[in-house]
Amino acid sequence: MIMTLKEIRKKILKGDFIGLFRLFGKDEKSMQPSEVAKIFLNLPASSAIKAFQSFPEKNKILLFPYLDSLVQKQIVNEIPKEDSAKILNNVSSDDLLIFLSNLKGVELSESLEYLNEKNKKAAHNLLGYPRESVARLINTEFVTIKKEMSIDEAMAHLRRYHQDTETANIVYVVDGEGKLVDDMPIRRLVLNEPAKKVEDIMDGFYIKLNINDSKESAVDVFKQYDRAALPVTDDKNVLLGVITVDDVLDVDEAKNTKEMQRFGGLESLEYPYVKTPFFSLIRKRAGWLIILFLSEMLTATAMGHFQSELDAALVLSLFVPLIISSGGNSGSQAATLIIRAMALNELTPKRWWYVMRREIFSGLTLGLILGTLGFVRITIWQKLHWANYDPKHHGQYWYLVATTVFFSLVGIVLWGTLSGSMIPIVLKKLKIDPATSSAPFVATLVDVTGLVIYFSIAAVILKGTLL
Amino acid sequence: MIMTLKEIRKKILKGDFIGLFRLFGKDEKSMQPSEVAKIFLNLPASSAIKAFQSFPEKNKILLFPYLDSLVQKQIVNEIPKEDSAKILNNVSSDDLLIFLSNLKGVELSESLEYLNEKNKKAAHNLLGYPRESVARLINTEFVTIKKEMSIDEAMAHLRRYHQDTETANIVYVVDGEGKLVDDMPIRRLVLNEPAKKVEDIMDGFYIKLNINDSKESAVDVFKQYDRAALPVTDDKNVLLGVITVDDVLDVDEAKNTKEMQRFGGLESLEYPYVKTPFFSLIRKRAGWLIILFLSEMLTATAMGHFQSELDAALVLSLFVPLIISSGGNSGSQAATLIIRAMALNELTPKRWWYVMRREIFSGLTLGLILGTLGFVRITIWQKLHWANYDPKHHGQYWYLVATTVFFSLVGIVLWGTLSGSMIPIVLKKLKIDPATSSAPFVATLVDVTGLVIYFSIAAVILKGTLL
Repeated sequence: MIMTLKEIRKKILKGDFIGLFRLFGKDEKSMQPSEVAKIFLNLPASSAIKAFQSFPEKNKILLFPYLDSLVQKQIVNEIPKEDSAKILNNVSSDDLLIFLSNLKGVELSESLEYLNEKNKKAAHNLLGYPRESVARLINTEFVTIKKEMSIDEAMAHLRRYHQDTETANIVYVVDGEGKLVDDMPIRRLVLNEPAKKVEDIMDGFYIKLNINDSKESAVDVFKQYDRAALPVTDDKNVLLGVITVDDVLDVDEAKNTKEMQRFGGLESLEYPYVKTPFFSLIRKRAGWLIILFLSEMLTATAMGHFQSELDAALVLSLFVPLIISSGGNSGSQAATLIIRAMALNELTPKRWWYVMRREIFSGLTLGLILGTLGFVRITIWQKLHWANYDPKHHGQYWYLVATTVFFSLVGIVLWGTLSGSMIPIVLKKLKIDPATSSAPFVATLVDVTGLVIYFSIAAVILKGTLL
Repeated sequence: MIMTLKEIRKKILKGDFIGLFRLFGKDEKSMQPSEVAKIFLNLPASSAIKAFQSFPEKNKILLFPYLDSLVQKQIVNEIPKEDSAKILNNVSSDDLLIFLSNLKGVELSESLEYLNEKNKKAAHNLLGYPRESVARLINTEFVTIKKEMSIDEAMAHLRRYHQDTETANIVYVVDGEGKLVDDMPIRRLVLNEPAKKVEDIMDGFYIKLNINDSKESAVDVFKQYDRAALPVTDDKNVLLGVITVDDVLDVDEAKNTKEMQRFGGLESLEYPYVKTPFFSLIRKRAGWLIILFLSEMLTATAMGHFQSELDAALVLSLFVPLIISSGGNSGSQAATLIIRAMALNELTPKRWWYVMRREIFSGLTLGLILGTLGFVRITIWQKLHWANYDPKHHGQYWYLVATTVFFSLVGIVLWGTLSGSMIPIVLKKLKIDPATSSAPFVATLVDVTGLVIYFSIAAVILKGTLL
């Protein structure tokens, strides 16, 4: 590439599509659709539509599936109807379905109008399945042979009836009723003697997905069995389509993004950050922020409850942020470990007791470490300038305050670790996404209870001296 | 499967391998290696080794690549030398390399001793590349043809010289010096007339990786170009091997796990949670926890600095946890959004000014929402029982305290949002993993500065009344 993406972007914004056209419009050696799509991600809608319209039809069809769903919608709405119809009827069936799955209501029915009868029927059928099912990802242009054929006949059959698309990497052996008998990488036809029969080179073993399976379970199957494509059948084992690993990579990426955003304490975004409109972004963030804020108000109630202790020993207030944040941090660590281990199927809720024992010991160990550090810090500190910070000059009781901080840290880190590890397990058991127990959520929970732990320990240890 | 995984696990723990053997040892229709590996993940080392040894050699070789790296090491160390040698020399070259990459020092040199000359030479060569380079993933059993061949000749050549392995899905056209000329899905040989020449069906376009490229950049290339396998060449374009999408899926998963664990405020684990030894787990967690704790000690210093204000208006202490946690939560949200957008290449550090403007408006909006909620809460609260919580009965100044809380929340949420969004960008610019600006890290930073903001605003608003 001679021009940088930035330079191309500038040209397009000026309405000069020649640079882009030269790079993408000519032959196979030029820019790839996925590279052009990257430029489109950073264009305002009007320029994107104009640039798209400047391409020859073939390239429009190549580029369309790689565009962001928001840009796809804008293009289909803005370009002439017959152009939209041509594009939608010529992209592969899985790409069409993914586009349609992102539409709702009027938008969806308008787009369905563009389709020819065959595509409309297929789309209607597949859109009837739940949004989260693999039905929304399947490619219906698959390649079938019969087990009675010789390899030579099978190859001739494929040459006559099938196009050179990625779904042809694996061929499917079906019986007279279209029921799946075996899958076979097409290489096996090449690597065996042409006179052999298909049934001679079948291994009779295949992994398949059911049309009602969820997209996320499909990700797990692909990862477990290292396949590049998997067949999808109905309950009667009739082959309905094929799912390829590239679509699954996208699902996996979206799943990870959702998990991370939830864990960061916000609702997951539908579009990339740079494409999400400002008020939609605020809405996704404000919801959880308000819930957490309202819960965190309980800390003010708790602090109010211990106001007389604070009034008697103001020095206790110094350590409030330190103590509650330690609980939040250790909770966030534990939640991360457990959420991720469950997402990778390394751990199931059934093993909660194993996790609990482990996290009790972890929490105690970590609490003892932080508690000791806290104790040392107060000891050093009081030697230096304790009196400065205690207007009532209770300096002689520093060791009692240090002891309070020590035990509070042990208790709160233990509590944070336990909450952080157990809440995701409970959520999973309740079939709620464990990542909902986000870092901020665990921190808020531990803040409120942490204050109660701190002041209760203080009440016991400081009774008769400071309190 | 008739027995559940749990039942099989129980049988194995009792030393009864017959159930497992029956399911995995017989024919292709029985259990898949990846399923057996799942059982192994939950076995203690001694049972795992015994169960492994109970398999026929062919199945040992099939199973080995799917096992966790810790289990692999234990097996190679414990079973007889000649068995280890047979396994290591017969797994595919990429699986061998991934196993060796997880070894260090003596372990590595011992394992290299098991290899035959050819494998030893290849491994020595590839292990010379950095741990994070694609060299550590390549499969050297690739399939080449020449462009002068007819399709028929090419197929005969493949039948004679190549085995039926996953790398044969794509064939590589090379010249006399082994330089890459084109790649071609093997289906294209099937789908074209046998009399045609290879050069007639070449498109001359291919995507390749360089042997020095990083594993993580390979993930991005696979995602961008939707390929199932990519060729790897040296600087002179000589074909060295092939990388398949299944290995890349594993790299991607490990990358996401690392990112999430860092973001959760701990060092990333080398092994799954359930396989990580207790003290190693503590070490990974204690490091960051101690750093955060020491930083958070600054909050005690800050609180100490404002002790005279607190003494004069103890009511201020009530809202300390509420205010600092709001900053932490909004910061964690912003950090999540920016870290993920950069990981997906939707955003580069160059666009920091765009992000900053956006986040200033977001922070202000979210701050105004929380500030208003805080103000309303204090207003309602004072009507009910203000005096109870303020031993000095400054009840008449409630509106000044509410105003202080309002402006503090606006300031702190804005500050949290800005820090959360800008720190990952700065880290990325400094070539440090942006996820290092974890939720706990941002929260700690905002806690300390948040206290300063809160008490400074209080000093201005309450001067002459409470202070």
